[in-house]
Amino acid sequence: MNILVTINSNYIHPLKVMLHSLFINHSNDKFCIYLMHSSLKDRELTMLNNFIESRNQQLKIITVDSDQFANAPVVKHFSVEMYYRLLAYKFLPPSIDRVLYLDPDMIIINSIRELYYLDLTGYLYAAAYHDRTPITNINKLRLKPYNIKAYYNSGVLLLNLNEQRQKISEKKIFEFVEKNKKKLILPDQDILNGLYSKQIKNVEETLYNFDARFYYYYKMVSKNKVDMDFIINHTAIIHFCGKKKPWYKNYYGSFHSLYKHYERQVNLS
Amino acid sequence: MNILVTINSNYIHPLKVMLHSLFINHSNDKFCIYLMHSSLKDRELTMLNNFIESRNQQLKIITVDSDQFANAPVVKHFSVEMYYRLLAYKFLPPSIDRVLYLDPDMIIINSIRELYYLDLTGYLYAAAYHDRTPITNINKLRLKPYNIKAYYNSGVLLLNLNEQRQKISEKKIFEFVEKNKKKLILPDQDILNGLYSKQIKNVEETLYNFDARFYYYYKMVSKNKVDMDFIINHTAIIHFCGKKKPWYKNYYGSFHSLYKHYERQVNLS
Repeated sequence: MNILVTINSNYIHPLKVMLHSLFINHSNDKFCIYLMHSSLKDRELTMLNNFIESRNQQLKIITVDSDQFANAPVVKHFSVEMYYRLLAYKFLPPSIDRVLYLDPDMIIINSIRELYYLDLTGYLYAAAYHDRTPITNINKLRLKPYNIKAYYNSGVLLLNLNEQRQKISEKKIFEFVEKNKKKLILPDQDILNGLYSKQIKNVEETLYNFDARFYYYYKMVSKNKVDMDFIINHTAIIHFCGKKKPWYKNYYGSFHSLYKHYERQVNLS
Repeated sequence: MNILVTINSNYIHPLKVMLHSLFINHSNDKFCIYLMHSSLKDRELTMLNNFIESRNQQLKIITVDSDQFANAPVVKHFSVEMYYRLLAYKFLPPSIDRVLYLDPDMIIINSIRELYYLDLTGYLYAAAYHDRTPITNINKLRLKPYNIKAYYNSGVLLLNLNEQRQKISEKKIFEFVEKNKKKLILPDQDILNGLYSKQIKNVEETLYNFDARFYYYYKMVSKNKVDMDFIINHTAIIHFCGKKKPWYKNYYGSFHSLYKHYERQVNLS
């Protein structure tokens, strides 16, 4: 399976935890990790390569030069890295037809095979939308002229690369950003939803993009179907969304002990 | 290392989770598990034996006949099993000089070697007391005539068997129970504290008998020293004290996800 990650130096540690959890829970699968970056140092890349190779998996590094985004509009304090997952199809080898983008602030605790091999005919992406109504409505309102169907989270994003090579236009993305500069809060996610929301296949968030902040909410709205048993046995991806991260001091949450458990295995390795 | 457990059928599942966590976090250690029981069925014993042998560890079964406790006073709804950990020295082979008793409602996530090999010269036991002052004071008051030094939790109890064979008297224990029948709440623990509290070597509860209900309390009183990082890296034994157990529906707590993680590994094995 092809995995895409895009990080800077601050996210090396969480990336290792995420990849470790992915590998350990897919002992019979082979992964090729595509790492798109512009600022990692050679020793950091070597360390990541050793980390991944020692687990019998493969790393492919895609170093992006800033001049490749010379004509991209810049938004507030965001770097051009915000475009990486949207324009990845231009940087990945033409021979691969799909890749699963994953944020580094996650642990993967069950198989992602069903997600990865999803039928994407006619879709550019697959993603989960975080369906807590008030938030979704605010986002819909904010991007109103684009008549979005749902507000998808871009932290887990399955890319249909063949379709994207034909249908996504860098120019259109840059125009969208130029036009909406002031409205954008999470630029990559806003672009995704503003431009492509109708071409995104929906996947179940409690399985593939479980927002760790909302355990009690999921449990309640599912009438206790999505309880800790369900999650540990079925949820593939737990996503530590938001500003508070489980590798920070003073984080609290239902999955803190589990995150620290995986993190420790990385520290010991 | 010698481990003592005493369960009935209701605790087979948690026992397996506890033992699994013990074995997996002591990959270089050998254990002999002594199981004292009076009511487990043959097929349950066979299943436990297979479970333990498949992990290259050893089970020794000690079946206790009820007539061996014919003259023991009975307290309320408690069975004579309440005496097992206190009188284990009579049932264990004379060749072994120490054993670590463990409750089944625990997970063992770091090494217990330092606890197990503690110098017990002059002590009958080693245990941790759960030092939340109001509770301790109530217990001290309740058992006042016995002038107890601290109220130890009997869920993790290192037994100095040589010393016990010389100094513990079954008769004294039965007399104590007869005399205090109406006061006893957790009989084994009350006996331990009422009769032997001065001969118990204290071990650090945050390392060897971490009460899972009190994460925030430990974190606060330790001024953030005992945070999730500390626990995952140093705490050996997490004890799910109290009536709410992590294998029940509707349990909530900081270590629920971690417990379920270990439980799942057992279910898959």
